[in-house]
Amino acid sequence: MNLRKAKLPVVRLPKRPRKTGLPPGTLIFTGRKKVEETYVTLVQFNAEGQIFEQHVKETLPTPEEGAFVSWYDIRGLHNVELIQAIGDRFDIHPLVLEDVLDTQQRPKFEEHEAGVFLTVQSLSFDREKLEIKTEQVAIYAGKGFVLSFQEDEDDLFPAIRERIHSGRGKIKKRGSDYLAYALTDNIVDHYYLLLDQLEEVLDDLEEEVLSRPGRHSKEKIHNLKIQSIMLRKMVSPLREAVGRFSKTDSPFIEESTRIFLRDLYDHTIQVLDTIDTYRDVMSGLYDLYLSEISFRMNNVIQLLTIMSTIFIPLTFLAGIYGMNFDNMPELHWEYSYFVLWGIMVLIALGLILLFKRKRWL
Amino acid sequence: MNLRKAKLPVVRLPKRPRKTGLPPGTLIFTGRKKVEETYVTLVQFNAEGQIFEQHVKETLPTPEEGAFVSWYDIRGLHNVELIQAIGDRFDIHPLVLEDVLDTQQRPKFEEHEAGVFLTVQSLSFDREKLEIKTEQVAIYAGKGFVLSFQEDEDDLFPAIRERIHSGRGKIKKRGSDYLAYALTDNIVDHYYLLLDQLEEVLDDLEEEVLSRPGRHSKEKIHNLKIQSIMLRKMVSPLREAVGRFSKTDSPFIEESTRIFLRDLYDHTIQVLDTIDTYRDVMSGLYDLYLSEISFRMNNVIQLLTIMSTIFIPLTFLAGIYGMNFDNMPELHWEYSYFVLWGIMVLIALGLILLFKRKRWL
Amino acid sequence: MNLRKAKLPVVRLPKRPRKTGLPPGTLIFTGRKKVEETYVTLVQFNAEGQIFEQHVKETLPTPEEGAFVSWYDIRGLHNVELIQAIGDRFDIHPLVLEDVLDTQQRPKFEEHEAGVFLTVQSLSFDREKLEIKTEQVAIYAGKGFVLSFQEDEDDLFPAIRERIHSGRGKIKKRGSDYLAYALTDNIVDHYYLLLDQLEEVLDDLEEEVLSRPGRHSKEKIHNLKIQSIMLRKMVSPLREAVGRFSKTDSPFIEESTRIFLRDLYDHTIQVLDTIDTYRDVMSGLYDLYLSEISFRMNNVIQLLTIMSTIFIPLTFLAGIYGMNFDNMPELHWEYSYFVLWGIMVLIALGLILLFKRKRWL
Amino acid sequence: MNLRKAKLPVVRLPKRPRKTGLPPGTLIFTGRKKVEETYVTLVQFNAEGQIFEQHVKETLPTPEEGAFVSWYDIRGLHNVELIQAIGDRFDIHPLVLEDVLDTQQRPKFEEHEAGVFLTVQSLSFDREKLEIKTEQVAIYAGKGFVLSFQEDEDDLFPAIRERIHSGRGKIKKRGSDYLAYALTDNIVDHYYLLLDQLEEVLDDLEEEVLSRPGRHSKEKIHNLKIQSIMLRKMVSPLREAVGRFSKTDSPFIEESTRIFLRDLYDHTIQVLDTIDTYRDVMSGLYDLYLSEISFRMNNVIQLLTIMSTIFIPLTFLAGIYGMNFDNMPELHWEYSYFVLWGIMVLIALGLILLFKRKRWL
Amino acid sequence: MNLRKAKLPVVRLPKRPRKTGLPPGTLIFTGRKKVEETYVTLVQFNAEGQIFEQHVKETLPTPEEGAFVSWYDIRGLHNVELIQAIGDRFDIHPLVLEDVLDTQQRPKFEEHEAGVFLTVQSLSFDREKLEIKTEQVAIYAGKGFVLSFQEDEDDLFPAIRERIHSGRGKIKKRGSDYLAYALTDNIVDHYYLLLDQLEEVLDDLEEEVLSRPGRHSKEKIHNLKIQSIMLRKMVSPLREAVGRFSKTDSPFIEESTRIFLRDLYDHTIQVLDTIDTYRDVMSGLYDLYLSEISFRMNNVIQLLTIMSTIFIPLTFLAGIYGMNFDNMPELHWEYSYFVLWGIMVLIALGLILLFKRKRWL
Repeated sequence: MNLRKAKLPVVRLPKRPRKTGLPPGTLIFTGRKKVEETYVTLVQFNAEGQIFEQHVKETLPTPEEGAFVSWYDIRGLHNVELIQAIGDRFDIHPLVLEDVLDTQQRPKFEEHEAGVFLTVQSLSFDREKLEIKTEQVAIYAGKGFVLSFQEDEDDLFPAIRERIHSGRGKIKKRGSDYLAYALTDNIVDHYYLLLDQLEEVLDDLEEEVLSRPGRHSKEKIHNLKIQSIMLRKMVSPLREAVGRFSKTDSPFIEESTRIFLRDLYDHTIQVLDTIDTYRDVMSGLYDLYLSEISFRMNNVIQLLTIMSTIFIPLTFLAGIYGMNFDNMPELHWEYSYFVLWGIMVLIALGLILLFKRKRWL
Repeated sequence: MNLRKAKLPVVRLPKRPRKTGLPPGTLIFTGRKKVEETYVTLVQFNAEGQIFEQHVKETLPTPEEGAFVSWYDIRGLHNVELIQAIGDRFDIHPLVLEDVLDTQQRPKFEEHEAGVFLTVQSLSFDREKLEIKTEQVAIYAGKGFVLSFQEDEDDLFPAIRERIHSGRGKIKKRGSDYLAYALTDNIVDHYYLLLDQLEEVLDDLEEEVLSRPGRHSKEKIHNLKIQSIMLRKMVSPLREAVGRFSKTDSPFIEESTRIFLRDLYDHTIQVLDTIDTYRDVMSGLYDLYLSEISFRMNNVIQLLTIMSTIFIPLTFLAGIYGMNFDNMPELHWEYSYFVLWGIMVLIALGLILLFKRKRWL
Repeated sequence: MNLRKAKLPVVRLPKRPRKTGLPPGTLIFTGRKKVEETYVTLVQFNAEGQIFEQHVKETLPTPEEGAFVSWYDIRGLHNVELIQAIGDRFDIHPLVLEDVLDTQQRPKFEEHEAGVFLTVQSLSFDREKLEIKTEQVAIYAGKGFVLSFQEDEDDLFPAIRERIHSGRGKIKKRGSDYLAYALTDNIVDHYYLLLDQLEEVLDDLEEEVLSRPGRHSKEKIHNLKIQSIMLRKMVSPLREAVGRFSKTDSPFIEESTRIFLRDLYDHTIQVLDTIDTYRDVMSGLYDLYLSEISFRMNNVIQLLTIMSTIFIPLTFLAGIYGMNFDNMPELHWEYSYFVLWGIMVLIALGLILLFKRKRWL
Repeated sequence: MNLRKAKLPVVRLPKRPRKTGLPPGTLIFTGRKKVEETYVTLVQFNAEGQIFEQHVKETLPTPEEGAFVSWYDIRGLHNVELIQAIGDRFDIHPLVLEDVLDTQQRPKFEEHEAGVFLTVQSLSFDREKLEIKTEQVAIYAGKGFVLSFQEDEDDLFPAIRERIHSGRGKIKKRGSDYLAYALTDNIVDHYYLLLDQLEEVLDDLEEEVLSRPGRHSKEKIHNLKIQSIMLRKMVSPLREAVGRFSKTDSPFIEESTRIFLRDLYDHTIQVLDTIDTYRDVMSGLYDLYLSEISFRMNNVIQLLTIMSTIFIPLTFLAGIYGMNFDNMPELHWEYSYFVLWGIMVLIALGLILLFKRKRWL
Repeated sequence: MNLRKAKLPVVRLPKRPRKTGLPPGTLIFTGRKKVEETYVTLVQFNAEGQIFEQHVKETLPTPEEGAFVSWYDIRGLHNVELIQAIGDRFDIHPLVLEDVLDTQQRPKFEEHEAGVFLTVQSLSFDREKLEIKTEQVAIYAGKGFVLSFQEDEDDLFPAIRERIHSGRGKIKKRGSDYLAYALTDNIVDHYYLLLDQLEEVLDDLEEEVLSRPGRHSKEKIHNLKIQSIMLRKMVSPLREAVGRFSKTDSPFIEESTRIFLRDLYDHTIQVLDTIDTYRDVMSGLYDLYLSEISFRMNNVIQLLTIMSTIFIPLTFLAGIYGMNFDNMPELHWEYSYFVLWGIMVLIALGLILLFKRKRWL
């Protein structure tokens, strides 16, 4: 019983930042410090298809001349001065920088004069702990550049990097808007993996509830419920944000990118649909658990009642003839003991028959 | 009890494709490979009412000259080169081809420059397993041609084919837009069959819950709930898609076809209405099951209580006079045994009367 | 217990038509054939207030000349040729005729070139079976004529007929649009009767649940729930249809009729409101039933526990002194039997006091 | 237990009128006849601040000349001729008069050529019966006059009358639109009183459920649920009606009155908000009741199980040594009786310890 | 058990004002009188950055000349004359003053000719009593001045005051609109603290429900439910009010402030989102509690059934051989006592095995 904690941690809602009382636009890193140093990877490619890549630490790399698109991939957000320097170089509004540093943002899309800004939660699922892990990615795209900010050092975009280098897909032929789309699309694509894992957990849980519902089952259902509430809370504003992204008339988004954004929007709708479906399935699972427990309790009580109803009158009869009255004529008749056995067997059989007819046996 | 699995499989949510990380527009078949070969059936008819029909394997048939409408019925989607060839011939956007190959799409409608695109799920119901089977049909209609794509080799449109050959209805007198409508209408028509079957299952289940609710009942209710959640998830976007189909101002849709599209739209609303009704009925069925179980448990416990309440005091009395104290005057009175019997009968009768007045008996 | 079926039939959802695969606009009667013959009653009145009435069988009556308004009241829909003839005479679209013959339509309103079309479900309540009976009425109103179609031969409009003959109200002074309104209003008026009956049933049921909740109660609640789901499913689209009727700018609707249509629209909103209220009440009734059952089970178990808790230790003590050990000193003391009685009475009294303080007694 | 009826009447939904089949606009009083006679009070004031007041029975008073505003306060609606006469004098549409006489109207607001029309339900709460009493007030305001109709003879507007006479507030300086507003505002103000009373009942009920949930608790919760359903049904359309009142561009509403109407609109929103909150609280109360009952049942059953688990093995042991076999060696050992007592005490202590560790004791 | 009251007070819904019957615009203080005296703090700063601060009691301070922004911070609302004087000086509509004094307002935003008006509830959480405390702040901002009204004497804005004095942030460089924004933002910022506390309580409660659900658990869940209902009721209209604030085209709001208002609006959405999430979590907690109780009851009853099922037949057998019939042959066989023991052990073992296979043990 004490093993529960080892296996199923009490669900923790993600912590929100505490910056109460400070003036808006103050840059303070409010997330968990996950990495020691801040790395900036700059990937650039020009019209001729040449690729330049720099990887620096704690400083802002100097871009190559003549690059068509420059992608700054910033990992680690506790170096506030560096973030401020980036903000200054690309002319970003302080409130945007504040949003970059606040790593528990509601996904949102904003148009600014110098570019478009989007925050997305990258999600992964820990099957052991039944827990969804989030990592906020903030994407800022302007004329010829894309900035992506994340707190952790995990590379979320190996596929994008690979597509740039291999030249597969259109990523190298198009502008910064398409790159921003590709990054977002890459994150949303991973939601499908998460949904697949969630579904497997749901399938297992369903079988568990049907075959051997136990102490852990209800905690797992509860845990999954909470996780899907959290999931919905993150994806629902994302759909909205991507919807506005796909409909924006910002000059930074080219016409040919729009169809891809609409496709991305369709994906977020589909993800949200699936989450809602899972929530319904989970609620059905809870109902199933409750009815399973009720059904089992019914069976247990039926057994108790059958046993009691059969033996209580018999024990009473045995008690009667265990009394010590001087004058109990039956005690002295020769076959009364055997007659009593007969009566008892008849009573028991009668009751068993009755229970059979009531379908209790 | 172990037969359950044989009869009611654990509900499996349909698998979604895994293509994470690939550039959008990459053509990869993501469904289950159901058939070994890809067949293309080309049906054409011209203004004079002549009908040309070709049936080829793994290649794209060459259309007849002067045909009014050409219908390419493609079954089997794993031949990606063929799909690509079709896309090239009819100038279809790569994202559309991607949607054709992704066979677990949310139903949707899109207008393109060269035509309109619609995906629909063709549904059938497996009464044994209480499972809805889906088969995605993608329809692309442009000037003078209709393409229908499906994964499986089952002929979903024998009725349409028959109407073309017999000349019944308007199908041969009208253009590709009407044919696209007719194909969609044919699929939606089959939803009614599915709803009828679902209703019969619901009726049976209702009777089962009322007369002999058992272990399977709650699993069946759960299963049907899940299925209807899935059903809703598929039909709700379809209604939307058909709604947009009926309101599109695409040049490929003629005015005279609109009234039929509106009629089709009415049908999807009616189907969705009915699904919602069934969901309400199922939720009512679950409530009924729970209250039935509660009611039965109540009855069982009442029986136990009646038996116990009557016999416990009597057995106690018998126990008293089974004690072996030297000085128990009652034991030696002549009629005390019979007096005790009398008292016991009176107690029992009194309690039975009490229970009768409480309406427990 | 077997009487249940006799009294409460398993709820049957209304059957939907099966016409799968036929071309749209094909006229096939899809309802239940309720009458043997098709009757057409033609009521006409002219500007001078003269009334002409014809009643024919299986044919279309020839209208009088100079009539201001002609009302064809068609009962019985299986004579498809007659329906087709009507369609031809009044220039009705085949899809409308199809809707007329499909007697399980969702209520709807459509504007056509030659007139407006409305389908309404006339409802009546069978209190014995707790079942709502439906009868679809299709109304088609054009310039100077109104057609009303129904499947059954019951006269749904005696009040309208009477108002025409008596000249009461405005019905004879106004055009076909007002007559179409009056027919619809007449049907909606009967909804109030149905709601009144439903309410009486609800009141009775509420009292039953509070005073003697039994096996039938939960089935009745279930039945009423299903019926109100069905009712809502029918009235909700009706409200929408009447709303569109009242806002239509069809040339067949005169300005002075609009205020009446708005009034009718208010009525449908009120009916829908009341249905929603009833659904809430029913859901409350189900909660009440469940808590009543829980409460009773609690009482039953309390009784069992009280009886057991009092007598189990006493019976144990009696059992102790019924043992046959050679050396049991208490057995031979003179007053130990009476002392034991005293102890037993004290134990019992103590427990009873305890239960009194726990408010169990 | 039989006192329940005396204290808590079975909830009665308010009766709706039955006028089925009559032509629309027919004036028939459909409410309960609450008063024997119809009284009309006419209050008038002119620009100089003079006040004229008449109080007549069954007739329509003749207004003074030169009055700025004339307020006809009509109580008692069964005198249909009088209502008709009023309609004729002020040129009111028959459907409006019909609505005046139909005293179970959904609150609504209508603009007419000669004035604006509003129906409101005046509410009061009967704390004994947990019942909300309604009294419909219909207000018709035109150029220089306000008509208020009510069924009962209770004076709902003493505060207004007092403000007119005392000259406090702006009521005498403004036109008929402000008076109509003031009447409505006065009724809505009383909703707050009702909500306060409802809240006190809720507080009491909450304490009852937590400390001594009994037979009545669930009935009270049910009753309050029904009442709040009814309340919501009445206030929700009122909000809509007042919203339209505050936004109307009717020439009868002066600009300076609008800010008061918006304020009134805010109040109706607040009332509706509070009702919704109460419904949530009530639903929480029901959950609390259920969990309280479950919790108590759990406790009862635990007690039963503890008693049974301890004494059943002991009684069995006592039964063993009460057997009469010839050869039972233990019976003849000298201290076996005391050893058995020791064993029994050990068993009991062991079980008690076990239950303590399980936190059952 | 009687300690409950000491620890968890019965939830009290906040009292609404009672002013029924008075003319609108009448100034009456309807809150709880929290302070004895009314204090007004006037903070002013001019274009040169000079700061003037006055702190007076029961009177309105005279402002300095040439101040850029004047902030009147009024605490204590029972001095109606003072409020009236403020209203007169700044030309505030009587209905606004009425709203200022009515301290249980729904948060709202209004534009007036002389300024904008906003009411917000400042919230704090009492973890002991699980109770949210509210303090209404009314903010009125016009050309060059901001008025903030509150009932209690607690300083809600030390951070703002500090930012003005220290010159950090933009507060001193911007106009009264930015100050009004900063005050509101400061209040909304504190909501995050409250949500954090609420979350910790939820976490603790979750662990309590999983490890040792007791009498208090359900009351705490209920209490938190009620509190979150109240919270939602307050924040939902706030979001609306702030939304209108951020979109207003009032001349008092400068363009550069708008982006901050939109940011504030985002925050209110996030707060509302989180509250909704908590409500879902709480509802999940209630489900968890119920299933935990069911699960435990099941276990208890299983134990009872196991004990009874094993010992009832054994006790019956012992009873049989305790009977005193003259002719009971088994009694006289030499080893029958030991044989019976053997049979009893076999029966017990058999039943234990059966329960093991049923996974009850």
